[in-house]
Amino acid sequence: MRIDIITCLPKLLEGPFSDSILQRAQNKNLVQLNIHDLRQFATNKHHKIDDYAFGGGAGMVLMAEPIVRCIRQLQSERSYDEIIYMSPDGDRLTQTVANELSLKKNLIVLCGHYKGVDERVREHFITREISIGDYVLSGGELAAAVLCDAIIRLLPGVLSDETSALTDSFQDGLVAPPVYTRPADFEGHKVPEILLSGNEKKIEEWRFEQAVKRTRDRRPDLLDK
Amino acid sequence: MRIDIITCLPKLLEGPFSDSILQRAQNKNLVQLNIHDLRQFATNKHHKIDDYAFGGGAGMVLMAEPIVRCIRQLQSERSYDEIIYMSPDGDRLTQTVANELSLKKNLIVLCGHYKGVDERVREHFITREISIGDYVLSGGELAAAVLCDAIIRLLPGVLSDETSALTDSFQDGLVAPPVYTRPADFEGHKVPEILLSGNEKKIEEWRFEQAVKRTRDRRPDLLDK
Repeated sequence: MRIDIITCLPKLLEGPFSDSILQRAQNKNLVQLNIHDLRQFATNKHHKIDDYAFGGGAGMVLMAEPIVRCIRQLQSERSYDEIIYMSPDGDRLTQTVANELSLKKNLIVLCGHYKGVDERVREHFITREISIGDYVLSGGELAAAVLCDAIIRLLPGVLSDETSALTDSFQDGLVAPPVYTRPADFEGHKVPEILLSGNEKKIEEWRFEQAVKRTRDRRPDLLDK
Repeated sequence: MRIDIITCLPKLLEGPFSDSILQRAQNKNLVQLNIHDLRQFATNKHHKIDDYAFGGGAGMVLMAEPIVRCIRQLQSERSYDEIIYMSPDGDRLTQTVANELSLKKNLIVLCGHYKGVDERVREHFITREISIGDYVLSGGELAAAVLCDAIIRLLPGVLSDETSALTDSFQDGLVAPPVYTRPADFEGHKVPEILLSGNEKKIEEWRFEQAVKRTRDRRPDLLDK
């Protein structure tokens, strides 16, 4: 899988991809992540990529020209399954969307910043708009990092134990059951006896019951689906 | 405002806070962000902070002891309004939650990783659990960065133009209207005439209509509230 991220602030994306699972996925060549600095696609002499909004008001808007130049250059090199724009009014990212996108081959992810991108980019070049939640961020960079993380960890071979992602929250429509590790007694707070029993079948049953109970308590909406 | 983030992978958080708005907020002393490396609070000789889950199964669990040591050390220095754990089964982050948290003074944010943290930490030390959405990430680090970004940009003085955050999506229960910048004609795609009219009142009306229309099209659920 290949993901091309277009951003005006590439520095924001250095950390999230430089350690742990996302770093390993790149080292193992399971994903190729490319970050493109929008400023390098500016056509004017000052490398200007944003300007005031027509009609006035606070906040800058990312100009169409550099974004479209970058998208076209990438498209001239290969075809893309989706050109995604991260936006709070896009379709909500869910585990189902992450599962679906993890099957794609080439994705472009455009990060807005400031007041967003010129609407004409969204109308004519973006194929899909995705929101990570109902809140506003300084820019699309963190949202893009969240999207990439959610997708990449699902690629076969990325997690060291492939069963690990299958027991995550949401994969079976339930949130995950509680987990415990050593010590068995932490300041008088004990691990549930059953987990120390060695009875695999009973432990599986207990975990399923706990997952259902927790889903009922915290996310009853998931059970109605 | 002060935010203390506890993580086993501090490197993941370097990028998101090192540029743009979050960097400026720290430079202006509007927020003090401290990242604590969980490994430095390990009590054993190998600086071990995770272990296998009781009852078996894939994935490691963060141990209670180092986390609790870190929380207690921070609490010995000042009192905290909330000790937040980032978890996909927590309360959903919304703009309302971000607004509320932006009024707090001291927050601790604990990032889980791998299969999560020992349940006893959540039961006895965490005061609030927050989810950024219905998807699973490699760890709580990106979720913590998203939470911090959503909160910090609301602090007075952080955005260069204070009216900017007020016109964001969700602040008035609507998604934001489309924005346009130069050129007025981009490859034949023109900016709506009204935005070039200079008629402020009409422009405001148009933007409100567009915001309502877009909310009806994309997020009718917001209008039912």
